[in-house]
Amino acid sequence: MINVGIVGFGYWGPNVARNFHTTPGARVVAVSDADDRSLARAAQSYPGVRMVKDFRELLTAPDVDVVAIVTPVSSHFEIAHMALSNGKHIFIEKPFTASTSQAEQLIELADRKKLKIMVDHTFLFTGAVKKIKELIDDGTLGDLYYFDSIRVNLGLFQKDVNVVWDLAPHDLSIMDHLLRLEPSAVMATGVAHFQNQLEDVAYITIYFPGNVIAHLNVNWLSPVKIRTTLIGGQKKMLVWNDLVSDEKIRVYDKGVEGLDCLGTDSKEKAYGLRLSYRSGDMWAPRVNQVEALQGETAYFIDCINNNITPKNDGSAGLRVVRILEAIKKSLAKGGALVRLN
Amino acid sequence: MINVGIVGFGYWGPNVARNFHTTPGARVVAVSDADDRSLARAAQSYPGVRMVKDFRELLTAPDVDVVAIVTPVSSHFEIAHMALSNGKHIFIEKPFTASTSQAEQLIELADRKKLKIMVDHTFLFTGAVKKIKELIDDGTLGDLYYFDSIRVNLGLFQKDVNVVWDLAPHDLSIMDHLLRLEPSAVMATGVAHFQNQLEDVAYITIYFPGNVIAHLNVNWLSPVKIRTTLIGGQKKMLVWNDLVSDEKIRVYDKGVEGLDCLGTDSKEKAYGLRLSYRSGDMWAPRVNQVEALQGETAYFIDCINNNITPKNDGSAGLRVVRILEAIKKSLAKGGALVRLN
Amino acid sequence: MINVGIVGFGYWGPNVARNFHTTPGARVVAVSDADDRSLARAAQSYPGVRMVKDFRELLTAPDVDVVAIVTPVSSHFEIAHMALSNGKHIFIEKPFTASTSQAEQLIELADRKKLKIMVDHTFLFTGAVKKIKELIDDGTLGDLYYFDSIRVNLGLFQKDVNVVWDLAPHDLSIMDHLLRLEPSAVMATGVAHFQNQLEDVAYITIYFPGNVIAHLNVNWLSPVKIRTTLIGGQKKMLVWNDLVSDEKIRVYDKGVEGLDCLGTDSKEKAYGLRLSYRSGDMWAPRVNQVEALQGETAYFIDCINNNITPKNDGSAGLRVVRILEAIKKSLAKGGALVRLN
Amino acid sequence: MINVGIVGFGYWGPNVARNFHTTPGARVVAVSDADDRSLARAAQSYPGVRMVKDFRELLTAPDVDVVAIVTPVSSHFEIAHMALSNGKHIFIEKPFTASTSQAEQLIELADRKKLKIMVDHTFLFTGAVKKIKELIDDGTLGDLYYFDSIRVNLGLFQKDVNVVWDLAPHDLSIMDHLLRLEPSAVMATGVAHFQNQLEDVAYITIYFPGNVIAHLNVNWLSPVKIRTTLIGGQKKMLVWNDLVSDEKIRVYDKGVEGLDCLGTDSKEKAYGLRLSYRSGDMWAPRVNQVEALQGETAYFIDCINNNITPKNDGSAGLRVVRILEAIKKSLAKGGALVRLN
Repeated sequence: MINVGIVGFGYWGPNVARNFHTTPGARVVAVSDADDRSLARAAQSYPGVRMVKDFRELLTAPDVDVVAIVTPVSSHFEIAHMALSNGKHIFIEKPFTASTSQAEQLIELADRKKLKIMVDHTFLFTGAVKKIKELIDDGTLGDLYYFDSIRVNLGLFQKDVNVVWDLAPHDLSIMDHLLRLEPSAVMATGVAHFQNQLEDVAYITIYFPGNVIAHLNVNWLSPVKIRTTLIGGQKKMLVWNDLVSDEKIRVYDKGVEGLDCLGTDSKEKAYGLRLSYRSGDMWAPRVNQVEALQGETAYFIDCINNNITPKNDGSAGLRVVRILEAIKKSLAKGGALVRLN
Repeated sequence: MINVGIVGFGYWGPNVARNFHTTPGARVVAVSDADDRSLARAAQSYPGVRMVKDFRELLTAPDVDVVAIVTPVSSHFEIAHMALSNGKHIFIEKPFTASTSQAEQLIELADRKKLKIMVDHTFLFTGAVKKIKELIDDGTLGDLYYFDSIRVNLGLFQKDVNVVWDLAPHDLSIMDHLLRLEPSAVMATGVAHFQNQLEDVAYITIYFPGNVIAHLNVNWLSPVKIRTTLIGGQKKMLVWNDLVSDEKIRVYDKGVEGLDCLGTDSKEKAYGLRLSYRSGDMWAPRVNQVEALQGETAYFIDCINNNITPKNDGSAGLRVVRILEAIKKSLAKGGALVRLN
Repeated sequence: MINVGIVGFGYWGPNVARNFHTTPGARVVAVSDADDRSLARAAQSYPGVRMVKDFRELLTAPDVDVVAIVTPVSSHFEIAHMALSNGKHIFIEKPFTASTSQAEQLIELADRKKLKIMVDHTFLFTGAVKKIKELIDDGTLGDLYYFDSIRVNLGLFQKDVNVVWDLAPHDLSIMDHLLRLEPSAVMATGVAHFQNQLEDVAYITIYFPGNVIAHLNVNWLSPVKIRTTLIGGQKKMLVWNDLVSDEKIRVYDKGVEGLDCLGTDSKEKAYGLRLSYRSGDMWAPRVNQVEALQGETAYFIDCINNNITPKNDGSAGLRVVRILEAIKKSLAKGGALVRLN
Repeated sequence: MINVGIVGFGYWGPNVARNFHTTPGARVVAVSDADDRSLARAAQSYPGVRMVKDFRELLTAPDVDVVAIVTPVSSHFEIAHMALSNGKHIFIEKPFTASTSQAEQLIELADRKKLKIMVDHTFLFTGAVKKIKELIDDGTLGDLYYFDSIRVNLGLFQKDVNVVWDLAPHDLSIMDHLLRLEPSAVMATGVAHFQNQLEDVAYITIYFPGNVIAHLNVNWLSPVKIRTTLIGGQKKMLVWNDLVSDEKIRVYDKGVEGLDCLGTDSKEKAYGLRLSYRSGDMWAPRVNQVEALQGETAYFIDCINNNITPKNDGSAGLRVVRILEAIKKSLAKGGALVRLN
């Protein structure tokens, strides 16, 4: 039996607690939150579980095997470092850390102590992302051209992070998982419209080797909610709309053909060339409707028990933080190109 | 009666010809096209109209008052210059010219000769853009936050221009018309996936004074066609979907309230602040379904007859070309910020 | 404090229990279910609450003020009759009873004992139905022309009732509430495709005085889920799509004008007359997103405490059962017209 | 070369004329219309073609091989009878005739004179209907359960026919073509809301042998335009939305399984049985986007030249008229069941 301690019982913490508690082979033994009302809510839901106000008490408790850190990113490093130092595996909210150097230190520490880090890239465990991963890995889409994601809605304004750190970690973790490519450069533009000086609209381009390009559009000021990703491949292209309950993924047998057969007669010279396009059936594969977080907590317990390196380990978290850091740099310079080596 | 000569009878020329021909007070008297088949098609549609192979013959014809230039952008300057030099008003396809210096020369020449230039920014004459313009000008939307446009579909690949010069002139002319703001800087990213080395996917950010930001997403490799523009204002926000036949424009009574009332208790410090959001009715104003080009040609004839400066005059064309040129520069540098003064 | 006993803890019972339990001034004191597993689930959710296997025990318990009957319709009459006889108010699932005579007996009994009956017409308490009711009652829609509802999806096949008794009570209770008209005749067609001989597809027309017509399309064999109602009025028409999260109700300023101005020239005689149509703005009023059942249970407690006759009382339940009975008769005769007086 | 004469150049006539004129092996040689303005329009579009005011002149002209009758249904029989009597093949608008006896007489006459009748069931020549026919005929859908069609919009009110005769011929001809079943009974309900006493809303059920049921919902008073058909089959189910430009047809791998495995434990007895449902992928086959009428006129010319009986011959027209006649009878009796033998 793996004993889990939860640090942070605000918005997302209750979900993490519930899923660990219902995962076979795991149980929640302690919850910590600095806020009395949050702690009272936790106590009501988990009658037999220890409630502690100071997270340090939880991090040093001998009966805790795993610490789930569900707090704002600014506190991640301190809590995670102490947890690992005390020999606890950690499950930690995204983004992993506030900087790459923090992420690297935590990874190094976990390695040294033979402990597992899992960064909560929840989307990797949805039926939709699993299906898309399958379609990419089995060659259905062919070589990829682009990854273009829109994640906009009205609010939720955060006090201490801008729209990029709030929304983009979702898309970056999905992109990282699906593309498995190292980005070569990042560029981001955006503006803040309110006195908190935090960007509420931002546009991010990420260049990859081989002419693959990714783009994220994140916006806290949109009147409508949009969660749409287009992925263009040489053989097939797909549209993922995460807001519909059925047919979330649509795969199109569409593409460009015969760019070699450039015409040469005068008409085409003058007015531009029309290539041939392939436009066939559309297909919406069945996507399993599972609770992603349930799959993720079960996977973490499995990783610990069988010494498996999670796909969403510290390195995955670091890759996302590295891009977030580059975005921050680019935004600070008004949209300069920031190279990643 | 205003006599119109059409140069170029390819894809769009027939529409321009038809609309001038059916505009009261105007008629088509000559058509020119280097391609024999195009000219034959024109001859069939306009039995009494003069067909000439060499456009120079049309540009110097004494009975031609207006020359409509419906040719690729690379030929615009030469034809337009000759037409103006010969005392003809010009109606010219977008983008106006291949460079700002060309545009400036044509504007100067037209001014000197007291001739009109109208750049075919057709969208300005659609019911949708007219309605949005109304909603902005009468203060319904309030101060603007952003203009975010997506124009993607499969192809049509052009031989001599990239996706930016093909698709963005639509959005840039609409944006220029609606915002009436001078952009301060431009940044563009994009890639070419085929051997023609022309970008087929591109993302453009345009900064304006006062924290207004615009973004264009243009893509020739999308499996689905999207033509959607989001405009965020302080009082209302709107979504314009140009692909639906009804309810193209949706105005949302949504926004952010009370950013001044920043909370200070510990909970909010730790987990971020939730502002209050205004979320009221949605309203889809009736949009007139007119043929935009018909309104535009009639407006041009009116401008000539009554010596009115068209809203889509050479200066409007120049403003669009200036941004296109900056985009080109930015793309060439891999996405550098290009300032406009 | 009103003490509530729940009879039936299957699919819907847990929702009814939860909402009564969280209604101020009410609490659940006993739950009964013949099925051991259901009772065990209830016991887990309500640790301090009495669990009884035999509902008779609950119906006679002195500490129970209200009995919520959440069982199949075939058992409604027996349970409700005993509850009322023992002086309990009843909250009862729809359809109220299996026949009009049963409904009439229960109403009469409740009247005599000065007890309240509330039939669980949950939809009446949704934000959408409340808003539509408002638009009809304040004259926004004008005189009504028709009520046309589609409620189709794949399954859920029931063992003992056909698609009409399963799905139509929703639409019938909504229709009854919105129209407030007494139907004059009913006609229903449908077929059963499986060996259980229960109709899985059915179409129902209901005639009202004044040329108002209603139609219901219910289907257990549809590949897609549709929950759409069209309501046509003289002044405005509306479409209610219950499956979207935003803009559930769309009000159209559309209609027919000038049917008096019938033309008389030969063209119109030969080819038919084109009236004039009014086609103005569309408007999606904000709809409150509340849990309907929460509003309903609170309303029932209020009705009991303040001796108010619920809008969804036994009579409302009877009106729905009367139409269901007529539909049954019509179906049995292959679609005969059944008059209601 | 087949010479075609067009009778009626109102709303649809110009389309019929244009398509016959551009069909290889055919040409329009004469047009007739009682209305001077219509005839003038025809003269302008077809400079070399004979214009006659009196259709009798056209019907007796020796150079006319085919008469296309594009007039209101009330005039069909007279014109068609005269055309056939004069040895002309006829292409005739739907509905074929105003009564079954008229249809039978025309069929008998054409048979005797060895002439072809084609009823303009245009939809049979659309890419969508062709694809659905294919999916039914090759067994993809399996045995059919139902055909459920909605065809509603605002207007066009006709002067001399109700909404059934205006809109239902489309659905009836499609249904007849796809199902190839003889209906056993018809039932229709509907009301007229205006002083012309013509039904503007109607609901039609058609029973077929083998528990197949069809339903049509036609409405001239809908604020939104809907053109949706659901077809349920044992193996697959499909939804055809004719208003979208792409993915008109969606085929769902959905259905009901295992109705034999009826459970017997007490829980199921009490609360109803939940069957197992099959819910797999969705698939939108590519549908050719062709002008249906072009395919139809070419097919008619082919039928004449090669002595082929058209699939949309007089008998197909008669089958549709027979149902229309039964609907009329049912409506007149307030919705009585009308048996067809």
